[in-house]
Amino acid sequence: MLRSVVMSCELCDLSIKENVIFSNRLFRIVHVYDVYYPGFIRLILNRHVKELSELTTDELSLVFEAIVKIEREIINLMQADKINIASLGNVVPHLHWHIIPRYFNDRHFPNPIWGNVNNDSYIVNNDLLDKEKLLIQNLRNKFN
Amino acid sequence: MLRSVVMSCELCDLSIKENVIFSNRLFRIVHVYDVYYPGFIRLILNRHVKELSELTTDELSLVFEAIVKIEREIINLMQADKINIASLGNVVPHLHWHIIPRYFNDRHFPNPIWGNVNNDSYIVNNDLLDKEKLLIQNLRNKFN
Repeated sequence: MLRSVVMSCELCDLSIKENVIFSNRLFRIVHVYDVYYPGFIRLILNRHVKELSELTTDELSLVFEAIVKIEREIINLMQADKINIASLGNVVPHLHWHIIPRYFNDRHFPNPIWGNVNNDSYIVNNDLLDKEKLLIQNLRNKFN
Repeated sequence: MLRSVVMSCELCDLSIKENVIFSNRLFRIVHVYDVYYPGFIRLILNRHVKELSELTTDELSLVFEAIVKIEREIINLMQADKINIASLGNVVPHLHWHIIPRYFNDRHFPNPIWGNVNNDSYIVNNDLLDKEKLLIQNLRNKFN
C-alpha cells in the first residue's frame, strides 16, 4: 500500500494498526471497531489529501463508486434503518469517509453518532455482530 | 421542479420555503440559513429516495459532480479551514447532502455541527457574511 506520510497525521502513521478489508493505490477500506456501531466502515485516502476536490476526476469516480458499493453491501447484509455517510476530518484533516449503519434504537438515533446519546442502555445484539462478520467477509470478496 | 410527494416528509412538502440556488429534474441546491454556519449548502434529491444507492449510475455521477463543484466554490470563496460533507437523513429519510464550511474557531469545531458546542461565544463576522453572499451568487452562475 502506498501512503504519503505526513508527520503527526494518524492516518499517515504506518505504526497504527487498522483492520484493512481492501486496499489499492488510491484508498483503503477499513473496518472500524465500535462497540455501539457494528458494520462501521471507513474509506481512507492513502495519500495525505485534505479535501475531496483535491482529487482528480478519475480518483473521485473510484472513491464514490466504492462508497456506493460499501453502502449497498451494508444495506443488503445489515438491515439498517438508515445509512450515514460523512467526510468530516476536523480532527484528522486527511480525507476519509465514514459509512455507518444506523438503527432506530441505537445509542444516538436520530442524532448522528457524534451527537448526544439518546439510548444509554443500548447493547448491540449478537445477531448484528454475526451480520457484521458476514459484511466484512462480503466486502473482502466484492473488492478483492 | 419535479418532486415526488411523500406525505409527512418535509423535503417533499411543497409548502415549505427553501432558498433554492439551482434546481434540475434530479436535485435542488439550497442555501441553508444557519446563524452559525454561513455558506451552509444542501443538495436535496427531488424525488423521495432514502439511500444513495437507490440512484442510478448516471444520477450518482450527477449528484457527486455537483457536490464536488459546490465544495470547490466554498473553498475558493469562504476560506474555510475544513469542509464537512454528510448524508445522514435520520430525522428526514429523504436523500440530502450537507456541505458545510468549518472554521477552527466556529461554534462546534472540531466537533461536527451536530456535536457538542465548543465555542459558545462564537459570532459570525461580517466578512464571512459577505463571502456567503458571493458564494450564493457564484453558485447561481456556475450551475445555471
